[in-house]
Amino acid sequence: MRAGIRSHREIARFDVETDVCVVGLGAAGAAAAIDARAAGADVAVLERASGGGGTSALSGGVLYLGGGTSLQTACGFEDTPDAMYRYLMASVGEVPDEPKVRRYCEGSVEHFEWVKAQGVPYKETYYPGISGEPPTDDGLVYSGAEQTHPFCDLAAPAPRGHVAAKTFQTGPLLMQHLCASTERAGARVLGDHCVTDLVLDDDGAVVGVVAENFGEVRTVRARGGVVLTTGGFVLNDEMLGRYVPRALRCQLRVAGDGDDGSGIRLGVAAGAATLHMEKASISLPVTQPWGLKRGVMVNARGQRFINEDTYYGRLGERALFHEDGRAFLIVDDAIFEEPDYCKEIAAVGETLAELETELQLPPGSLDATLSVYNRHAEHGQDPVFGKRREYLQPLVKPPFGAIDCTTENCLYAAFTLGGLVTDAEARVLGPSGDVIPGLYGAGRSTAGVCAGDYSSGLSLGDATFFGRVAGCHAAGGGS
Amino acid sequence: MRAGIRSHREIARFDVETDVCVVGLGAAGAAAAIDARAAGADVAVLERASGGGGTSALSGGVLYLGGGTSLQTACGFEDTPDAMYRYLMASVGEVPDEPKVRRYCEGSVEHFEWVKAQGVPYKETYYPGISGEPPTDDGLVYSGAEQTHPFCDLAAPAPRGHVAAKTFQTGPLLMQHLCASTERAGARVLGDHCVTDLVLDDDGAVVGVVAENFGEVRTVRARGGVVLTTGGFVLNDEMLGRYVPRALRCQLRVAGDGDDGSGIRLGVAAGAATLHMEKASISLPVTQPWGLKRGVMVNARGQRFINEDTYYGRLGERALFHEDGRAFLIVDDAIFEEPDYCKEIAAVGETLAELETELQLPPGSLDATLSVYNRHAEHGQDPVFGKRREYLQPLVKPPFGAIDCTTENCLYAAFTLGGLVTDAEARVLGPSGDVIPGLYGAGRSTAGVCAGDYSSGLSLGDATFFGRVAGCHAAGGGS
Repeated sequence: MRAGIRSHREIARFDVETDVCVVGLGAAGAAAAIDARAAGADVAVLERASGGGGTSALSGGVLYLGGGTSLQTACGFEDTPDAMYRYLMASVGEVPDEPKVRRYCEGSVEHFEWVKAQGVPYKETYYPGISGEPPTDDGLVYSGAEQTHPFCDLAAPAPRGHVAAKTFQTGPLLMQHLCASTERAGARVLGDHCVTDLVLDDDGAVVGVVAENFGEVRTVRARGGVVLTTGGFVLNDEMLGRYVPRALRCQLRVAGDGDDGSGIRLGVAAGAATLHMEKASISLPVTQPWGLKRGVMVNARGQRFINEDTYYGRLGERALFHEDGRAFLIVDDAIFEEPDYCKEIAAVGETLAELETELQLPPGSLDATLSVYNRHAEHGQDPVFGKRREYLQPLVKPPFGAIDCTTENCLYAAFTLGGLVTDAEARVLGPSGDVIPGLYGAGRSTAGVCAGDYSSGLSLGDATFFGRVAGCHAAGGGS
Repeated sequence: MRAGIRSHREIARFDVETDVCVVGLGAAGAAAAIDARAAGADVAVLERASGGGGTSALSGGVLYLGGGTSLQTACGFEDTPDAMYRYLMASVGEVPDEPKVRRYCEGSVEHFEWVKAQGVPYKETYYPGISGEPPTDDGLVYSGAEQTHPFCDLAAPAPRGHVAAKTFQTGPLLMQHLCASTERAGARVLGDHCVTDLVLDDDGAVVGVVAENFGEVRTVRARGGVVLTTGGFVLNDEMLGRYVPRALRCQLRVAGDGDDGSGIRLGVAAGAATLHMEKASISLPVTQPWGLKRGVMVNARGQRFINEDTYYGRLGERALFHEDGRAFLIVDDAIFEEPDYCKEIAAVGETLAELETELQLPPGSLDATLSVYNRHAEHGQDPVFGKRREYLQPLVKPPFGAIDCTTENCLYAAFTLGGLVTDAEARVLGPSGDVIPGLYGAGRSTAGVCAGDYSSGLSLGDATFFGRVAGCHAAGGGS
């Protein structure tokens, strides 16, 4: 039989019989297991590691939710599902999955109550910054580009980053509660079980899995369905090199041990289509502290390419994928301050011409860029990229400096966004939009709400949201 | 059973029994059939249209070949497989398929003799221009970016576009000969047969196909293998919208009726992996006549983004995918001449400032760009993008004009480059690099030699080359 799939005919007797088999115990897997149990199904969760948590436990723990959640309301912010929908449709990438985005926005208020019901604690306070990982235990934060051009003109901004009550290490806190809730719900968690194959019946429907447990082969029959929640593929060098080669150059790959694309490969072997395999979330936190947003970001040709005040997830995407990871943040003496993360200074010069020479930019290019920038910044305008007035200040005070944003010399944090095609019911689809019976998916083994341009919290957000949908569906409860 | 696949158990008796079943009769399918027959196999070719030709017959008929072909030699050009290899590895995109490129370059001289042996006529003369479709019946032409930065410094340039002896309409001539040769070879060509499913055995190997013929279901058993040569998916709006949405905006989609991705979907349904699904060849012939290469191409922010003297396939790729299809070619009175294809003039102005206003570019942006360009062009240099000296001339003579290169107002010609993953033996691969037994592919239903950045002739080139490999392999002859 081919790699990743087995015929049911090969398996005389299954070692485990269950209704729903969840593969992977990160945020998506926990949500699937909890709601499948709630729908009355027997649930087995197979996790490759000894315990649950996955990449979710290594994350900043932010969930992107909105539409008027209890936390948003408590913090005094108004939001609507429609405003959230408009922001996401405009910001998540070129080809947003409309039905998925719609369902996510419409169900977001309820979903946050579900998260709280699992025991995850939230402090009802607002952190007045912009971050995917606020340095406090505040519960609510702007974790995307809502307040910047062009999104501020397209949808009423609201903070939608929901962060559990802990200063940093929020991911572990989130997963501690979700894993505990999974156990409480009565799901059977089988650690050290690495799924190697999906089991297909004669019609190509998925009816179980084959796993390896300390060298022993274990077979699981899933009467209702198999839910793949195994994460992305940022740790699989071969897949990354083929689909997102530039991500290989990033200093940080945001992942637990398991993100080798195993679930994606299992689904493809069973006939699933994939989407957005070339997309990744790339964070470039060079404008921290935020005063550095007054700097001017240029590429290797001395040209600007983005509004520097936008979210760091957008900075990274543009710098890596469109400028090949060759960029500098130009500052002058008036605005320079010690960067929080990207500390490498590429050059300093008493004049822009000197800086340009040091950086080996084309002669005259930096001067041309800054003459246009300064001319408009003096009037609080940026007709080129729409940076907000509060971050517009002509760069005129020597010495001038360049913070190195070259991929190899700066913090770029990457994880993959592409994966199996699923519909808004979390069913895995074949290449013609047909459902693969018995197969569900959620989290980064699927192509989710984010279609290329990231806001922090979208990954845990859609993982838990569509994990629940998948679990409920596989349990026979529809959705 | 799921869409696109059928179990062999469902088929009591096959209507046709053969060794090799080729799906689609374009250039790849003809090559596969001819060489499968040469290896002694029974061959059935199923073509959806009434006759052969496909998109290949609508193309410019150029084959990208080199390494010292008889035509190159007759025209007085030296070339080596190594020079060709170095050009292709540097130019075809971010992730070239090294084994495939190597094999293609090493076999190129022999392959051209094979093409001639099929009766395709070539005139042993060189057309001294750069084009994927020369306006003469000359046989040899530069059809890529070999002579431009940075490639001219990486590999000795040579013209590698091999064009059959006809003024335009070269694609039909090529396919007329390849189809005739297919018939002569004794392959059984079944027209009006649209393949709807691959037939799998219990182990997931491909053992035949199901086709529709005027409403009748016909089944074909293929003892040696099935070769998918069905073309790309540029005519499938849903697939294009999902994977290459910007291509939907192109005025011209280079395709025969069949390019709806059917073969890609068949392969995926059977468990194949895909690659480069977001890539397309995008031609933007705005610098014709060639004197227009002295113009300066800018994006919607008034910035340059490419060396304007490069091949039009690269112009289109950058303009559409990196500048969102918003671009202008700026000219002055000294260099302007009537464009061959892109005739829309977006604006004219007595000064650059006036032109800038007309084009709604950010104030000062065009002046800044041209001040840098002109300053260096005066000395025959372009340190920003490396345009060649012969096309460098300061733009100073009013009036100034802008040729509209906006996607909607200009000729962009698109076809897709992504498809099934195959190895250098033309075997279709699953997601972990495993071979799907019995399944082969070539041409634009596969991810081929070109991994995103096009030179004309690569598609017919790799289609015929790896079509032959596939046919030979499926016939049991190895390769």
